[in-house]
Amino acid sequence: MKTDSFLSSRMWRYATKRFDSTKKVSEEHLHLILESIRLTPTSYGLQPFKVMVVSSLNLREQLRTAGFNQPQFTDASHLLAFAHYDGFSEELIDRFIALNKEIRKPDPEKIEGYGSFLKNLFGSWSTEQKAHWADKQMYLALGNALQATADLKVDSCALEGFDAVKANEILGLSERHLNVTAFLALGYRSSEDATQHLAKVRVSSSVMVEII
Amino acid sequence: MKTDSFLSSRMWRYATKRFDSTKKVSEEHLHLILESIRLTPTSYGLQPFKVMVVSSLNLREQLRTAGFNQPQFTDASHLLAFAHYDGFSEELIDRFIALNKEIRKPDPEKIEGYGSFLKNLFGSWSTEQKAHWADKQMYLALGNALQATADLKVDSCALEGFDAVKANEILGLSERHLNVTAFLALGYRSSEDATQHLAKVRVSSSVMVEII
Repeated sequence: MKTDSFLSSRMWRYATKRFDSTKKVSEEHLHLILESIRLTPTSYGLQPFKVMVVSSLNLREQLRTAGFNQPQFTDASHLLAFAHYDGFSEELIDRFIALNKEIRKPDPEKIEGYGSFLKNLFGSWSTEQKAHWADKQMYLALGNALQATADLKVDSCALEGFDAVKANEILGLSERHLNVTAFLALGYRSSEDATQHLAKVRVSSSVMVEII
Repeated sequence: MKTDSFLSSRMWRYATKRFDSTKKVSEEHLHLILESIRLTPTSYGLQPFKVMVVSSLNLREQLRTAGFNQPQFTDASHLLAFAHYDGFSEELIDRFIALNKEIRKPDPEKIEGYGSFLKNLFGSWSTEQKAHWADKQMYLALGNALQATADLKVDSCALEGFDAVKANEILGLSERHLNVTAFLALGYRSSEDATQHLAKVRVSSSVMVEII
């Protein structure tokens, strides 16, 4: 990737407030954005989250109500819900070990040993610790996806402001031990969105970075 | 960005276990990786974290000891420490409002009102909630940086396995209300790192994504 497009893509993206509801993200670009999420590295490779593409307009309208009427919930081309596992025990580890066996054909004894190590480790964590960890891993994917959309010249807005209890109910997640903590609206900026013309507000390098 | 480089860059990257300690990341690429972190969007724009470039070999050796002797701590070209603010009150909000005023010259009454809204909001959160929130925002930047390095054909490894109390002590962070929860080692893979040849283990799209 060239240096100039690396930075210009980062300057181009902004949290889109108004989407042009007539413009749709192509299936190819949606696929790539979802792949950026699926391929994001996570701690121990466990990928403790799911992404829902909310295509039902009825669900999107309900989510908008739960989301303080933010228009992106309904007006963006696509709406992705990011939900992490908040009540898992050993199933994510079993899933990983089975997948690893299938893909890498490792020494069975070694990989089973690794599974036992993970089960011991997570077994010592509280439910809250595990949920926090899963949520953080999901944010790696969200951070990756936010830039992936910009690299494809697709606009986006991450949405964290909503009633989480209601959103989980609307999406039927509560009984599945999944907890939605962010949405990602995808589409194309409306020419009427004045926000696009505002300068980016970021701390300087000297505030963000220390060399020690 | 072209579709083929979008996916091939994601397939190329892997959690590098052994770095070639003779190869250094250029200052230009380091700058771009740090910019990818600094420009990452965060909730309310508050950027509640810092990144330390640990250039002291002595500190890196101590961190390796705190990090279960993982060689990346010392052998990678560069080591970045990601530390979030875990005991902030209103200073991050004041910082953002001052910066917004300076950069965007907004209506003073409106931006002050927004500042009060944020202070009320965060004022209702527990210290633990705020720390969790800040840690998650930092993971957006880490997720972004992980892919940014790959786009520059720089190898990396995120490191979460270390004694956090010791790492905070070594970096002198405890008294600054900063808490390191991840490191990012940057450099170039050693030809002897067998991990680079292993197939990627990821759940399928049908497991990760639901369309509802």
